[in-house]
Amino acid sequence: MSSFMQAAIEEAQCGLAEGGIPIGSVLVHQGRIIGRGHNRRVQQGSAILHGEMDAFENAGRQPASVYRESVLYTTLSPCPMCSGAILLYGIPKVVVGENRTFMGDEALLRDRGVQVETLQDETCIALMRDFIAAKPALWDEDIGV
Amino acid sequence: MSSFMQAAIEEAQCGLAEGGIPIGSVLVHQGRIIGRGHNRRVQQGSAILHGEMDAFENAGRQPASVYRESVLYTTLSPCPMCSGAILLYGIPKVVVGENRTFMGDEALLRDRGVQVETLQDETCIALMRDFIAAKPALWDEDIGV
Repeated sequence: MSSFMQAAIEEAQCGLAEGGIPIGSVLVHQGRIIGRGHNRRVQQGSAILHGEMDAFENAGRQPASVYRESVLYTTLSPCPMCSGAILLYGIPKVVVGENRTFMGDEALLRDRGVQVETLQDETCIALMRDFIAAKPALWDEDIGV
Repeated sequence: MSSFMQAAIEEAQCGLAEGGIPIGSVLVHQGRIIGRGHNRRVQQGSAILHGEMDAFENAGRQPASVYRESVLYTTLSPCPMCSGAILLYGIPKVVVGENRTFMGDEALLRDRGVQVETLQDETCIALMRDFIAAKPALWDEDIGV
Protein backbone atom coordinates (compact mmCIF):
# COMPACT_ATOMS: atom_id res chain seq x y z
CA MET A 1 0.00 0.00 0.00
CA SER A 2 1.17 3.54 -0.68
CA SER A 3 2.37 5.64 2.23
CA PHE A 4 -0.41 8.10 1.37
CA MET A 5 -3.21 5.60 1.93
CA GLN A 6 -1.38 4.54 5.08
CA ALA A 7 -1.47 8.19 6.23
CA ALA A 8 -5.21 8.33 5.50
CA ILE A 9 -5.71 5.16 7.56
CA GLU A 10 -3.73 6.68 10.43
CA GLU A 11 -6.08 9.67 10.30
CA ALA A 12 -9.09 7.32 10.43
CA GLN A 13 -7.59 5.48 13.41
CA CYS A 14 -6.93 8.80 15.12
CA GLY A 15 -10.60 9.71 14.67
CA LEU A 16 -11.67 6.37 16.11
CA ALA A 17 -9.41 6.85 19.13
CA GLU A 18 -11.11 10.22 19.72
CA GLY A 19 -14.51 8.50 19.78
CA GLY A 20 -15.31 9.66 16.26
CA ILE A 21 -16.16 8.17 12.89
CA PRO A 22 -13.12 6.34 11.46
CA ILE A 23 -12.68 7.96 8.05
CA GLY A 24 -9.46 9.69 7.10
CA SER A 25 -8.05 11.46 4.09
CA VAL A 26 -4.93 13.17 2.79
CA LEU A 27 -4.50 15.61 -0.10
CA VAL A 28 -1.23 15.07 -1.95
CA HIS A 29 0.41 17.61 -4.27
CA GLN A 30 3.34 16.44 -6.34
CA GLY A 31 4.23 13.69 -3.90
CA ARG A 32 3.85 15.74 -0.73
CA ILE A 33 0.92 15.76 1.74
CA ILE A 34 -0.47 19.31 1.86
CA GLY A 35 -3.57 18.54 3.93
CA ARG A 36 -4.63 15.68 6.17
CA GLY A 37 -7.83 15.18 8.10
CA HIS A 38 -10.48 12.94 9.56
CA ASN A 39 -14.19 13.03 10.23
CA ARG A 40 -15.00 15.50 13.05
CA ARG A 41 -18.76 15.01 13.48
CA VAL A 42 -18.43 13.83 17.06
CA GLN A 43 -15.33 15.75 18.08
CA GLN A 44 -16.45 19.18 16.83
CA GLY A 45 -20.19 18.66 16.43
CA SER A 46 -19.61 19.25 12.75
CA ALA A 47 -22.11 18.53 9.98
CA ILE A 48 -19.60 19.21 7.19
CA LEU A 49 -16.19 17.97 8.37
CA HIS A 50 -16.10 14.58 6.72
CA GLY A 51 -12.57 13.22 6.40
CA GLU A 52 -12.07 14.57 2.89
CA MET A 53 -13.50 18.00 3.78
CA ASP A 54 -11.18 18.18 6.79
CA ALA A 55 -8.20 17.40 4.56
CA PHE A 56 -9.24 20.15 2.12
CA GLU A 57 -9.72 22.58 5.00
CA ASN A 58 -6.38 21.75 6.57
CA ALA A 59 -4.63 22.23 3.21
CA GLY A 60 -5.75 25.85 3.45
CA ARG A 61 -6.46 28.22 0.58
CA GLN A 62 -4.80 26.92 -2.58
CA PRO A 63 -4.82 28.17 -6.15
CA ALA A 64 -6.64 26.09 -8.77
CA SER A 65 -3.28 25.10 -10.27
CA VAL A 66 -2.34 23.18 -7.10
CA TYR A 67 -5.63 21.28 -6.89
CA ARG A 68 -5.31 20.30 -10.54
CA GLU A 69 -2.01 18.56 -9.80
CA SER A 70 -3.22 16.84 -6.62
CA VAL A 71 -4.46 13.38 -5.66
CA LEU A 72 -6.96 12.83 -2.85
CA TYR A 73 -6.61 9.66 -0.78
CA THR A 74 -9.59 8.67 1.34
CA THR A 75 -10.28 5.53 3.35
CA LEU A 76 -13.95 5.40 2.23
CA SER A 77 -15.83 6.08 -0.99
CA PRO A 78 -16.60 9.84 -1.06
CA CYS A 79 -20.18 10.89 -0.32
CA PRO A 80 -21.99 13.44 -2.53
CA MET A 81 -20.67 16.41 -0.51
CA CYS A 82 -17.04 15.29 -0.65
CA SER A 83 -17.43 14.31 -4.31
CA GLY A 84 -18.75 17.81 -4.96
CA ALA A 85 -15.68 19.33 -3.31
CA ILE A 86 -13.48 17.13 -5.51
CA LEU A 87 -15.35 18.43 -8.57
CA LEU A 88 -15.31 22.06 -7.42
CA TYR A 89 -11.56 22.04 -7.15
CA GLY A 90 -10.90 19.90 -10.18
CA ILE A 91 -9.00 17.15 -8.37
CA PRO A 92 -8.01 14.81 -11.22
CA LYS A 93 -7.54 11.58 -9.25
CA VAL A 94 -9.01 10.01 -6.13
CA VAL A 95 -7.71 6.86 -4.45
CA VAL A 96 -10.44 5.19 -2.37
CA GLY A 97 -9.68 2.71 0.40
CA GLU A 98 -12.93 0.81 -0.05
CA ASN A 99 -16.54 1.09 -1.21
CA ARG A 100 -17.87 -2.17 0.24
CA THR A 101 -19.41 -0.64 3.37
CA PHE A 102 -20.61 2.55 1.63
CA MET A 103 -20.81 3.49 -2.04
CA GLY A 104 -20.41 7.21 -2.56
CA ASP A 105 -20.76 9.28 -5.73
CA GLU A 106 -17.96 7.54 -7.65
CA ALA A 107 -20.14 7.27 -10.77
CA LEU A 108 -20.60 11.06 -10.88
CA LEU A 109 -16.87 11.58 -10.42
CA ARG A 110 -16.06 9.24 -13.29
CA ASP A 111 -18.76 10.82 -15.48
CA ARG A 112 -17.01 14.15 -15.01
CA GLY A 113 -13.58 12.85 -15.83
CA VAL A 114 -12.10 12.12 -12.41
CA GLN A 115 -9.92 9.02 -12.22
CA VAL A 116 -11.16 6.88 -9.31
CA GLU A 117 -9.05 3.98 -8.08
CA THR A 118 -10.61 1.73 -5.44
CA LEU A 119 -8.39 -0.55 -3.37
CA GLN A 120 -10.87 -2.63 -1.31
CA ASP A 121 -8.30 -2.49 1.47
CA GLU A 122 -9.06 -4.89 4.32
CA THR A 123 -7.99 -2.46 7.05
CA CYS A 124 -10.33 0.23 5.69
CA ILE A 125 -13.19 -2.27 5.37
CA ALA A 126 -12.70 -3.55 8.93
CA LEU A 127 -12.60 -0.02 10.38
CA MET A 128 -15.99 0.86 8.89
CA ARG A 129 -17.61 -2.55 9.31
CA ASP A 130 -16.83 -2.58 13.02
CA PHE A 131 -17.83 1.08 13.47
CA ILE A 132 -21.18 0.69 11.68
CA ALA A 133 -21.95 -2.41 13.75
CA ALA A 134 -21.13 -0.56 16.96
CA LYS A 135 -22.82 2.81 16.22
CA PRO A 136 -25.37 2.46 13.42
CA ALA A 137 -27.36 5.59 14.34
CA LEU A 138 -24.25 7.78 14.31
CA TRP A 139 -23.31 6.42 10.90
CA ASP A 140 -26.81 7.05 9.56
CA GLU A 141 -26.60 10.64 10.77
CA ASP A 142 -23.28 11.16 9.00
CA ILE A 143 -24.70 10.11 5.63
CA GLY A 144 -28.10 11.75 6.01
CA VAL A 145 -30.05 8.51 6.37
CA MET B 1 -39.09 38.82 -1.27
CA SER B 2 -39.34 36.30 1.53
CA SER B 3 -37.80 37.17 4.86
CA PHE B 4 -35.59 34.08 4.45
CA MET B 5 -33.93 35.33 1.26
CA GLN B 6 -33.64 38.70 2.98
CA ALA B 7 -31.78 36.97 5.83
CA ALA B 8 -29.46 35.27 3.31
CA ILE B 9 -28.75 38.68 1.72
CA GLU B 10 -27.98 40.14 5.13
CA GLU B 11 -25.47 37.32 5.64
CA ALA B 12 -23.89 38.13 2.26
CA GLN B 13 -23.68 41.82 3.16
CA CYS B 14 -22.13 40.91 6.51
CA GLY B 15 -19.46 38.90 4.65
CA LEU B 16 -18.77 41.83 2.35
CA ALA B 17 -18.40 44.18 5.31
CA GLU B 18 -15.81 41.78 6.76
CA GLY B 19 -13.79 42.00 3.53
CA GLY B 20 -15.07 38.61 2.38
CA ILE B 21 -16.96 37.12 -0.53
CA PRO B 22 -20.60 38.29 -0.47
CA ILE B 23 -22.56 35.05 -0.50
CA GLY B 24 -24.99 34.16 2.25
CA SER B 25 -27.36 31.35 3.09
CA VAL B 26 -29.93 30.24 5.62
CA LEU B 27 -31.32 26.78 6.35
CA VAL B 28 -35.00 26.86 7.25
CA HIS B 29 -36.87 24.07 9.00
CA GLN B 30 -40.65 24.34 9.19
CA GLY B 31 -40.59 28.11 8.90
CA ARG B 32 -37.73 28.74 11.33
CA ILE B 33 -34.08 29.50 10.54
CA ILE B 34 -31.94 26.77 12.12
CA GLY B 35 -28.62 27.76 10.53
CA ARG B 36 -27.29 30.90 8.88
CA GLY B 37 -23.92 31.58 7.36
CA HIS B 38 -21.76 33.32 4.82
CA ASN B 39 -18.61 32.60 2.87
CA ARG B 40 -15.55 32.57 5.18
CA ARG B 41 -12.70 32.09 2.69
CA VAL B 42 -11.05 35.39 3.56
CA GLN B 43 -12.12 35.68 7.19
CA GLN B 44 -11.07 32.18 8.29
CA GLY B 45 -8.75 31.17 5.45
CA SER B 46 -11.29 28.46 4.70
CA ALA B 47 -11.39 26.36 1.54
CA ILE B 48 -14.74 24.77 2.40
CA LEU B 49 -16.86 27.39 4.17
CA HIS B 50 -18.95 28.62 1.28
CA GLY B 51 -22.11 30.38 2.41
CA GLU B 52 -24.24 27.25 2.19
CA MET B 53 -21.64 25.11 3.98
CA ASP B 54 -21.41 27.68 6.76
CA ALA B 55 -25.20 27.58 7.16
CA PHE B 56 -25.14 23.77 7.37
CA GLU B 57 -22.29 23.91 9.88
CA ASN B 58 -24.00 26.51 12.04
CA ALA B 59 -27.20 24.45 12.06
CA GLY B 60 -25.17 21.80 13.90
CA ARG B 61 -25.74 18.08 13.86
CA GLN B 62 -29.29 17.33 12.74
CA PRO B 63 -31.11 14.07 12.09
CA ALA B 64 -32.03 13.20 8.52
CA SER B 65 -35.69 13.87 9.30
CA VAL B 66 -34.98 17.56 9.89
CA TYR B 67 -33.01 18.04 6.67
CA ARG B 68 -35.77 16.36 4.71
CA GLU B 69 -38.25 19.00 5.88
CA SER B 70 -35.91 21.94 5.30
CA VAL B 71 -35.43 24.57 2.61
CA LEU B 72 -32.03 26.10 1.85
CA TYR B 73 -31.94 29.75 0.78
CA THR B 74 -28.75 30.96 -0.87
CA THR B 75 -27.93 34.25 -2.58
CA LEU B 76 -25.98 32.50 -5.38
CA SER B 77 -26.41 29.33 -7.42
CA PRO B 78 -24.78 26.51 -5.38
CA CYS B 79 -21.39 25.23 -6.59
CA PRO B 80 -20.71 21.47 -6.91
CA MET B 81 -19.54 21.19 -3.27
CA CYS B 82 -22.60 22.93 -1.85
CA SER B 83 -24.87 21.03 -4.25
CA GLY B 84 -23.29 17.83 -2.97
CA ALA B 85 -24.04 18.80 0.62
CA ILE B 86 -27.66 19.47 -0.40
CA LEU B 87 -27.81 15.98 -1.94
CA LEU B 88 -26.06 14.29 0.99
CA TYR B 89 -28.64 15.59 3.42
CA GLY B 90 -31.64 15.21 1.14
CA ILE B 91 -32.69 18.86 1.22
CA PRO B 92 -35.87 18.82 -0.90
CA LYS B 93 -35.95 22.49 -1.99
CA VAL B 94 -33.39 25.23 -2.66
CA VAL B 95 -34.24 28.87 -3.29
CA VAL B 96 -31.45 30.61 -5.24
CA GLY B 97 -31.00 34.38 -5.30
CA GLU B 98 -29.48 34.42 -8.76
CA ASN B 99 -27.50 32.39 -11.30
CA ARG B 100 -26.59 35.19 -13.71
CA THR B 101 -23.08 35.78 -12.35
CA PHE B 102 -22.34 32.09 -11.67
CA MET B 103 -24.19 28.93 -12.66
CA GLY B 104 -23.70 26.17 -10.13
CA ASP B 105 -24.82 22.54 -10.27
CA GLU B 106 -28.55 23.25 -10.48
CA ALA B 107 -28.98 20.71 -13.29
CA LEU B 108 -27.59 17.91 -11.08
CA LEU B 109 -29.86 18.97 -8.22
CA ARG B 110 -32.93 18.88 -10.48
CA ASP B 111 -31.84 15.54 -11.99
CA ARG B 112 -31.85 14.10 -8.49
CA GLY B 113 -35.25 15.44 -7.57
CA VAL B 114 -34.42 18.67 -5.73
CA GLN B 115 -36.81 21.55 -6.39
CA VAL B 116 -34.73 24.58 -7.39
CA GLU B 117 -36.36 28.01 -7.53
CA THR B 118 -34.24 30.85 -8.92
CA LEU B 119 -35.26 34.45 -8.24
CA GLN B 120 -32.77 36.51 -10.33
CA ASP B 121 -32.89 39.04 -7.51
CA GLU B 122 -31.28 42.37 -8.43
CA THR B 123 -29.66 42.85 -5.01
CA CYS B 124 -28.01 39.43 -5.21
CA ILE B 125 -26.84 40.06 -8.78
CA ALA B 126 -25.39 43.47 -7.88
CA LEU B 127 -23.52 42.05 -4.86
CA MET B 128 -21.71 39.47 -6.97
CA ARG B 129 -21.27 41.60 -10.11
CA ASP B 130 -19.55 44.34 -8.10
CA PHE B 131 -17.48 41.85 -6.09
CA ILE B 132 -16.26 39.92 -9.15
CA ALA B 133 -15.31 43.19 -10.88
CA ALA B 134 -13.39 44.32 -7.80
CA LYS B 135 -11.63 41.04 -6.89
CA PRO B 136 -11.61 38.64 -9.85
CA ALA B 137 -8.66 36.54 -8.59
CA LEU B 138 -10.31 35.95 -5.21
CA TRP B 139 -13.50 34.87 -6.94
CA ASP B 140 -11.60 32.50 -9.24
CA GLU B 141 -9.94 30.93 -6.20
CA ASP B 142 -13.31 30.38 -4.54
CA ILE B 143 -14.67 28.42 -7.50
CA GLY B 144 -11.45 26.56 -8.33
CA VAL B 145 -10.77 28.41 -11.59
